[in-house]
Amino acid sequence: MIGEIIAIGDELISGRIVNTTSSFAASRLFSAGHQVKKITVIGDDPDSIRDTLLEAISDNQFVIISGGLGPTTDDITNESVSKALGLPLEKNPQVEKQIEEMEARLGEHAPDQFKWKLTMLPKGAKVLNPTGHAAGYELRYNGVYLFFLPGVPEQLREHLTERVLPRLNSLDQNRPFVMQKVFKLFGLTEIEINLRLEELSLTSNHIKLGYYPVFPEVHVSVTVIDRSQAKAEDLLKKAAETIHSEFEQYIVADEESGSLAATLGDLLKAKRFMLSAAESCTGGMLGATLTSVAGSSEWFDRSMVTYSNQAKVDLLGVSKETLAQYGAVSRQTALEMVNGTRKRAESQCALAMTGIAGPGGGTPDKPVGTVFIAMSAEETTLVHRFLFPGNRDEIRKLTVETALDWLRRFLKYGSLLPGYKPVA
Amino acid sequence: MIGEIIAIGDELISGRIVNTTSSFAASRLFSAGHQVKKITVIGDDPDSIRDTLLEAISDNQFVIISGGLGPTTDDITNESVSKALGLPLEKNPQVEKQIEEMEARLGEHAPDQFKWKLTMLPKGAKVLNPTGHAAGYELRYNGVYLFFLPGVPEQLREHLTERVLPRLNSLDQNRPFVMQKVFKLFGLTEIEINLRLEELSLTSNHIKLGYYPVFPEVHVSVTVIDRSQAKAEDLLKKAAETIHSEFEQYIVADEESGSLAATLGDLLKAKRFMLSAAESCTGGMLGATLTSVAGSSEWFDRSMVTYSNQAKVDLLGVSKETLAQYGAVSRQTALEMVNGTRKRAESQCALAMTGIAGPGGGTPDKPVGTVFIAMSAEETTLVHRFLFPGNRDEIRKLTVETALDWLRRFLKYGSLLPGYKPVA
Repeated sequence: MIGEIIAIGDELISGRIVNTTSSFAASRLFSAGHQVKKITVIGDDPDSIRDTLLEAISDNQFVIISGGLGPTTDDITNESVSKALGLPLEKNPQVEKQIEEMEARLGEHAPDQFKWKLTMLPKGAKVLNPTGHAAGYELRYNGVYLFFLPGVPEQLREHLTERVLPRLNSLDQNRPFVMQKVFKLFGLTEIEINLRLEELSLTSNHIKLGYYPVFPEVHVSVTVIDRSQAKAEDLLKKAAETIHSEFEQYIVADEESGSLAATLGDLLKAKRFMLSAAESCTGGMLGATLTSVAGSSEWFDRSMVTYSNQAKVDLLGVSKETLAQYGAVSRQTALEMVNGTRKRAESQCALAMTGIAGPGGGTPDKPVGTVFIAMSAEETTLVHRFLFPGNRDEIRKLTVETALDWLRRFLKYGSLLPGYKPVA
Repeated sequence: MIGEIIAIGDELISGRIVNTTSSFAASRLFSAGHQVKKITVIGDDPDSIRDTLLEAISDNQFVIISGGLGPTTDDITNESVSKALGLPLEKNPQVEKQIEEMEARLGEHAPDQFKWKLTMLPKGAKVLNPTGHAAGYELRYNGVYLFFLPGVPEQLREHLTERVLPRLNSLDQNRPFVMQKVFKLFGLTEIEINLRLEELSLTSNHIKLGYYPVFPEVHVSVTVIDRSQAKAEDLLKKAAETIHSEFEQYIVADEESGSLAATLGDLLKAKRFMLSAAESCTGGMLGATLTSVAGSSEWFDRSMVTYSNQAKVDLLGVSKETLAQYGAVSRQTALEMVNGTRKRAESQCALAMTGIAGPGGGTPDKPVGTVFIAMSAEETTLVHRFLFPGNRDEIRKLTVETALDWLRRFLKYGSLLPGYKPVA
């Protein structure tokens, strides 16, 4: 089906917020075989909403409109749509019930005018309601499917993947069978992956590949389109096998819901290993990443975030002499950190990292981005020097991902460094 | 002046690349007092380019068109514009000269067909040429100012700031002054903030308020527009004072670039305090948030991420009896965690948190979302029970924000709990 995305919001049209949600929606629609011809951004302005919506309805089979559905005074999408399409606002009992349930659960009550505003939707609106978020709705007008979604990124993503995409897929009767699989890769650039996949000649009328950098990973989607379900399944299976054999060591997760941390957790669980960590430049980001996985207490014991030198001495037994002679960012310190961690936590494996995330603190010998990562598992202890590109946040994320990926590779293949080249 | 931004590129319309350049252009134009009514993204498709361009010309005083000016086969903007506006492509001697000069400088020669393509611009094009980039040009059509800019982010930024903005400013002597300020609030809902601001009657023809939830904070923007710079400055100053006095304790940062962690860091630095922490359910997220601030080593010492009970005993001296009698998620354990942290780190203040982030692990007594946060500073040690709503990630984020905000409030006002209501 052919469609348009309209994003509404003064924060978008004034450039204060980058419009990431429309890109997300466009990429998902594209991967599912739908065609987005235009993305339009306008402000919270009734005339702009009317003109843009009416034009989009005359040009498309579906329109996705995001933003302006909230309860505050600057949220004017519902009123504007009601006027533009001549559909009076009506109280939606489903939304009313959901708000009442939420209030009962939280023991809080919102002022009546806000509740009233949230429950008043244009006549004919069908609430989409993924996981309790009531804001989004579907409306059919002149044979065109309109989807009104909240602009808040997480809520838009939920509405889109759980309601809009399945709905559009089911509406398109002539639409062939579509299946998709996502691979999350770390250690190769988007261009390297693209080049290697081009050589495999996977792409055809039936197979589409998509590339989405989700720093520091690259996600590759394989979309298979065929009129026969059996053939689509077969095509996807073969494509997945090809990608697996070409990129195996770089694949940190092979499901949309998967993550490197969860993959690593499964490997640790299978070996009945507990993992402990010592962090300096990452400041707790490694622990936070690991514990974002529900049930991580089965395989994660502790992380000692030793930001100061004194903390490294106290908590890890790093010697003052090592710190004085080689510095906190050194091979020797990283090694003493990982050894101290394993010894004190009595864990079967450990990770430690110390580095310069910037923007200050770099020297000619150890420029910003210099990070020493140490990994210890069973009888093996290794330390490597990395030089990561980017800003403070990027360097920290690369450090965490590289450390986790290194341990993943060790547990799976024996020691095998991730793609980022070690220096010296 | 009133205008529109059109971004051309298959990579944008398929969502593979987020359209950051249009946001940049919009924010710069907005700040300079020009009005962008619409941002439109379309693919590299001649029909879309024609339709979108002609419509934009009929609706606006200026149009900025980016992308598709390069030499490769997928770059079709110049050809499409030439056809759409009936302006034949003509060889531009200035571009030709620049390419020859660049080739001489680099000692490299591009294939002739590429060079030819780059030099052929629609009749009437005036090359903008900031710092040697030849691609962009200005074209006047039906009295409308059209600016064609390269889509490459750095080049677009250069063209925009060095050529387009000065040109538009010189064309529009009557434009008003626009100033903006952002406040980041925690502890009130978007609705509560909106209600209280409505009562203050700040909004007028000259003042616009915007609300943007950035979980778990709500960001409020104040935009002031006036023909007189002095009056605009005065309006913004007064509005900022009103917001400050109404919401003071809830404002965790009052600049676009600010953050709660940075605000807290400034308070700690002023008191020459070092902060240490003990984390359980947040798994390192508190440390990661604090150390996202450059220079945080001046006021942040360590965080002990004690995910297992044994780690709580080893690193913090929590007693096994306490853990057995009250459980890891309890007032008593939180208290022993924060006391152990301060004692072992010898820091002037400490935060500790233990809770159930879910989705599993909840009980009738302690449902998912139950979190005990302990704060200790100078002679004061406090512990409170919170019940946070949301999923695992949201509960963890609320825990970190609440803990940091509590300490911020303590350092600023003495102990004052953040807006999330303590339970029992």
